[in-house]
Amino acid sequence: MAEWGERLAGVRGVLLDISGVLYDGDAGGGTPISGSVEAVARLKRSHLKVRFCTNESQKSRGKLVGRLRQLGFDICEEEVTAPAPAACQILKEQGLRPHLLIHDEVRSEFDQIDTSNPNCVVIGDAGEAFSYQNMNKAFQVLMELEKPVLISLGRGRYYKETSGLMLDVGGYMKALEYACGIKAEVVGKPSPEFFKSALRAIGVEAPQAIMIGDDIVGDVGGAQRCGMRALQVRTGKFRPGDEHHPEVKADGYVDNLAEAVDLLLRHADQ
Amino acid sequence: MAEWGERLAGVRGVLLDISGVLYDGDAGGGTPISGSVEAVARLKRSHLKVRFCTNESQKSRGKLVGRLRQLGFDICEEEVTAPAPAACQILKEQGLRPHLLIHDEVRSEFDQIDTSNPNCVVIGDAGEAFSYQNMNKAFQVLMELEKPVLISLGRGRYYKETSGLMLDVGGYMKALEYACGIKAEVVGKPSPEFFKSALRAIGVEAPQAIMIGDDIVGDVGGAQRCGMRALQVRTGKFRPGDEHHPEVKADGYVDNLAEAVDLLLRHADQ
Repeated sequence: MAEWGERLAGVRGVLLDISGVLYDGDAGGGTPISGSVEAVARLKRSHLKVRFCTNESQKSRGKLVGRLRQLGFDICEEEVTAPAPAACQILKEQGLRPHLLIHDEVRSEFDQIDTSNPNCVVIGDAGEAFSYQNMNKAFQVLMELEKPVLISLGRGRYYKETSGLMLDVGGYMKALEYACGIKAEVVGKPSPEFFKSALRAIGVEAPQAIMIGDDIVGDVGGAQRCGMRALQVRTGKFRPGDEHHPEVKADGYVDNLAEAVDLLLRHADQ
Repeated sequence: MAEWGERLAGVRGVLLDISGVLYDGDAGGGTPISGSVEAVARLKRSHLKVRFCTNESQKSRGKLVGRLRQLGFDICEEEVTAPAPAACQILKEQGLRPHLLIHDEVRSEFDQIDTSNPNCVVIGDAGEAFSYQNMNKAFQVLMELEKPVLISLGRGRYYKETSGLMLDVGGYMKALEYACGIKAEVVGKPSPEFFKSALRAIGVEAPQAIMIGDDIVGDVGGAQRCGMRALQVRTGKFRPGDEHHPEVKADGYVDNLAEAVDLLLRHADQ
């Protein structure tokens, strides 16, 4: 297809979403998506720069990378841009002491952060920890602040586990926004600052970069608004209606990461 | 104050919010707001028509009225307009079979409703039942429907218990709206249909009716949009900022229900 040549020409760097692109997670450990282990390996052997850009906030980068390596992926912690470390940077820069409504498995990312006498709330994909009691506590902390600050690790609507679709942090962020009458600061995709920090880490400019993800809004739309190109894979939380999304049109739709990498390695140089 | 005469002249019917106006609830049973028991009694002895108009969806009307009677209020079940019975009417009219995400104490209101093979979700103030698992189940039911229908029993942001502010159903409604990309149908205040059904029950037209509530948006704003007048009490979830709300201005602010009734009985006839 000649058109792919035009769409992918000049790409020097690739941002890869993880969940739904590399693997489908579940409580046990997850399953690699067919062809993705080899596709990542091929990308890394190529001349293209590669960075993993995830909104995962249920696990620390260490735990996430450990799981992916067990599944056979060539990945290390330093190659991952994730919301929790990005949030820690903001907390430090702004002198914020968070009340944390997060999953226990990501808590270690906040080990160096002062959480005494909180003056903000950080919310992540807390999973089962999104109990009424925990949500109400976060709500009460916010309502007691003169200027309530809510930082959300991503704003995903849902993600897909092998057992089915699962509510992501976005809905809970909306719940607190509505109850408190505030607007959250989103750290993670589709925040432009988050994409830019991933690009800085590999020294590639947005026009020479492409995002590959399963989320038409968070991955594809977000990356395009930053001046990047973006492909949507038909794996993970992809739904057929995504190809006719009213607002976002990907630069291409591919069956899976393996097909995306085939096309990239064939056409990126043109 | 001459001005009260103008503001209250011609009032024939009174809609009373319950929580935060009659009493402050808590897990145990709640406490009457000072002067409210006698104020309700005086209203009912007067020439004014009285109807209770509540968004309570944690308890059936029977349980709510039982609790209020224990606290000394003159109230019976037939005098209460509440979201759960209103929702049941809609479910029957539209042939809807709900998946229920509600508090156990209100479940009896749905005894006559077919809940097999659900084709919609009804969400109420479920309190502790707002677990991640229950929210995710409601989300999954909605996502499996071709045309997802979400009915919310009110859309309150929060309410006040003696122990502090508590998240109400509204935030959870917003969470499901966002995650599913849909808009809920709200049954309860501030829905005009809900206020109108309360007025129909006492045979009073909106221009001759007044709402007394502690919620500047749900009670005061909602009633005014229906052509009623509305007073806000400085009890319950009232906050000083409410008197300078950017969008809603009550016809009057009073310290509590007792003061509202004093003024009504003095000026309503003028």
